[in-house]
Amino acid sequence: MELISPLDNIFLLGESREHPMHVGGLQLFVPPDGAGPEFVRDTYEAMLLCTDVQPTFRKHPAFLGGVTNIAWVEDKDVELDYHLRRSALPAPGKVRDLLELTSRLHGYLLDRHRPLWEAHLVDGLTDGRYALYVKIHHALIDGVSAQRLMQRTMTPDPNDDELRVAWTLRPRRHKSASRGPSPLQMLARTAGSVAALAPSTLSLARAALIEQQLTLPFQAPKTMFNVRIGGARRIAAQSWSLERFKRVKAAAGGVTVNDVVLAMCAGALRGYLLEQSALPDTPLVAMVPVSLRTDERADRGGNMVGTILCNLATHLDDAGKRLEAIHESMNDNKQVFSQLPQIQQFALSAFLTGGIAFSLVPGFVAAAPPPFNIVISNVPGPREPLYWKGARLDGNYPLSSALDGQALNITLTNNADNLDFGLVGCRRSLPHLQHLLGHLEDSLKDLERSAGV
Amino acid sequence: MELISPLDNIFLLGESREHPMHVGGLQLFVPPDGAGPEFVRDTYEAMLLCTDVQPTFRKHPAFLGGVTNIAWVEDKDVELDYHLRRSALPAPGKVRDLLELTSRLHGYLLDRHRPLWEAHLVDGLTDGRYALYVKIHHALIDGVSAQRLMQRTMTPDPNDDELRVAWTLRPRRHKSASRGPSPLQMLARTAGSVAALAPSTLSLARAALIEQQLTLPFQAPKTMFNVRIGGARRIAAQSWSLERFKRVKAAAGGVTVNDVVLAMCAGALRGYLLEQSALPDTPLVAMVPVSLRTDERADRGGNMVGTILCNLATHLDDAGKRLEAIHESMNDNKQVFSQLPQIQQFALSAFLTGGIAFSLVPGFVAAAPPPFNIVISNVPGPREPLYWKGARLDGNYPLSSALDGQALNITLTNNADNLDFGLVGCRRSLPHLQHLLGHLEDSLKDLERSAGV
Repeated sequence: MELISPLDNIFLLGESREHPMHVGGLQLFVPPDGAGPEFVRDTYEAMLLCTDVQPTFRKHPAFLGGVTNIAWVEDKDVELDYHLRRSALPAPGKVRDLLELTSRLHGYLLDRHRPLWEAHLVDGLTDGRYALYVKIHHALIDGVSAQRLMQRTMTPDPNDDELRVAWTLRPRRHKSASRGPSPLQMLARTAGSVAALAPSTLSLARAALIEQQLTLPFQAPKTMFNVRIGGARRIAAQSWSLERFKRVKAAAGGVTVNDVVLAMCAGALRGYLLEQSALPDTPLVAMVPVSLRTDERADRGGNMVGTILCNLATHLDDAGKRLEAIHESMNDNKQVFSQLPQIQQFALSAFLTGGIAFSLVPGFVAAAPPPFNIVISNVPGPREPLYWKGARLDGNYPLSSALDGQALNITLTNNADNLDFGLVGCRRSLPHLQHLLGHLEDSLKDLERSAGV
Repeated sequence: MELISPLDNIFLLGESREHPMHVGGLQLFVPPDGAGPEFVRDTYEAMLLCTDVQPTFRKHPAFLGGVTNIAWVEDKDVELDYHLRRSALPAPGKVRDLLELTSRLHGYLLDRHRPLWEAHLVDGLTDGRYALYVKIHHALIDGVSAQRLMQRTMTPDPNDDELRVAWTLRPRRHKSASRGPSPLQMLARTAGSVAALAPSTLSLARAALIEQQLTLPFQAPKTMFNVRIGGARRIAAQSWSLERFKRVKAAAGGVTVNDVVLAMCAGALRGYLLEQSALPDTPLVAMVPVSLRTDERADRGGNMVGTILCNLATHLDDAGKRLEAIHESMNDNKQVFSQLPQIQQFALSAFLTGGIAFSLVPGFVAAAPPPFNIVISNVPGPREPLYWKGARLDGNYPLSSALDGQALNITLTNNADNLDFGLVGCRRSLPHLQHLLGHLEDSLKDLERSAGV
């Protein structure tokens, strides 16, 4: 029996009907040429035969005489047809219907009496595509690792028709250069032990945020995104061609693709808040996870994930000036972050991959101003087209969590020639979340116009 | 703001991911002649326009600075398209696929930030029928009232195409003879106040059960139905012609239709337990709700629901002898119950309509023997064919709750010429719940053979 680490326990103890603590992903596939109407069903049946379930997908909290959250147990007998489910879409079977279904699936809790994951194979899109929605509890895996795991089920070879599923993949053996524990584990060891750290995580994270905020010429305003949330979710998702971001980047000069992404999001948030008559006078602040590999740290391997508070310049109505301001803000704050002591970075990372930390502090949500208004996260994805049993991965939308005080989350990933955006919002607090997709497109067009491309 | 009564609070406080406290119903409809492929979708759109939502369907617990379970609030702005959802079945769209979907829908918690109900309109059965699954929190309504409410949305007139939905129906005005509060409210008033009663409900209910058990020549054995349960459910449902029960009743002589129903269930439970190599030597005991209107009470109106502990005689392998034993047991114990003081009847009713009471007592489930092995409940249903916007009600399956110590529930109702059975089981504890349907049919055949019909 394996004890549950205090860090993992943050996700278990912090979970409630209103705050499911799982990460999810929605993948859209184009069936291979010549696939018949039985293709998805056959895929489902074949998946059920993948019974060599790895330990991560067998784990759930033990119930020791009514007391839980102390130890993990591994189920010997995982009922695959419980965890893997088939669904269909009601007519007309549009992507909108798929997102409606995904919103529901993303909104309810996993059953703690069973291994903490579910996968849903969804048939019935009128355009012939099908979807796979996966949810895994955050106590088992973080969002980046989940994305990586899903990628490992796929291959760049369209003719490779072997069926791989996430729950049977053995942990990857890294080469010695990049071998080692995950970034969180590594930092935990550096700091002594997770057990020693966890109780003070909150104050550390807050201190780190405040230290960062001191370097900003402004504070995050209170917005409609920074409220207590309910249990229901709305999901929105869309793909944009990476080429468009690259063209803006080239024309604007000196900025990164991620700067353009942030500027696109900033313009969309501005448009959405204007539509709701809820745009604050001062600019919104985004928390942006970034990779922070320095030479000194490279030998420790893994991706060092840090966080940056970014001025989204939503008070400016000129798209070009917003992009400029965002670029500056990212540059300035990256410097600050890289100088933070490791222990504070760890605390921030714990928040970032969990998010629950702050909402566990009584009164934190109500306290004005919020430390930031939204998390915008760009997760590494595949750079070439991938196939799953011959079906092309057409869309790959990461779905994170909405939290008290953080009613909207934007996570995106690159998928071959596209950037795929997954938006998760509290259904109660955020009306017409789908409109944000239109605002994102409008905002990107504004950036293109401003850059003259 | 309306305070939550202690009785209603039993259902709210006793709820957890593993013990959703809602009642449900699955209704199957045959679309009217000439209905096109858009019929179900049009019905859905029309339902969304029924916005005059009654108070019961607006209520949810208030969140007062993080403290809940004190008062109800009524939502002014009920998002109907949240509560009313469309689903479809994956191919081949058999009843089995519908039950699989229903099992999932019945297994997750309602969102307490919203009015505590959901309705799912399900399309895609290959035989052209469609389904409506409804779940409502037990703190709002009991199973019998929920069934009655759903019946009021329908009409015996196949040509009446008015659309009625449960959430807009005003509370019925009873005639003076039968007017008044619900049985539970009535009993509560008799006893002084619910507030005074609630804390002692558990011990009262237990005392009443023990008193009843003393009259039985046996104790309920420990079975695979009397275990701690998980959060997932399996649903099984099937209709049987009422005529078959009536024929057995007539041939056997002196027994009631409900005796035949109980004998059918007893034989099926015996068959299922034999299949699992888990049949105890001593007979199973069922808790059976019965209507107990005596002349003395008739003027108080309402249906007086009582409970009887019935010897299911599962140790006998002769179907006829089992029927006899069950008939005797029901007769003997009915006498006992009607002599119980009202306050004990109330306590038992609280358990019956809630069920959670016992599982809230630490160690109760583990303690052997259980007070009874299973609840078998026959809920009044319509005696004539009913129609909903021209669509015929083909099946009407009540779905109750599985509980710690009560992993299986059988609830049935009459629907025109049929008896419709809804089985709800804990997915973890009860393998192959669908097999019970076959055992029910076999058992009814045995009774027919034994009675020579």
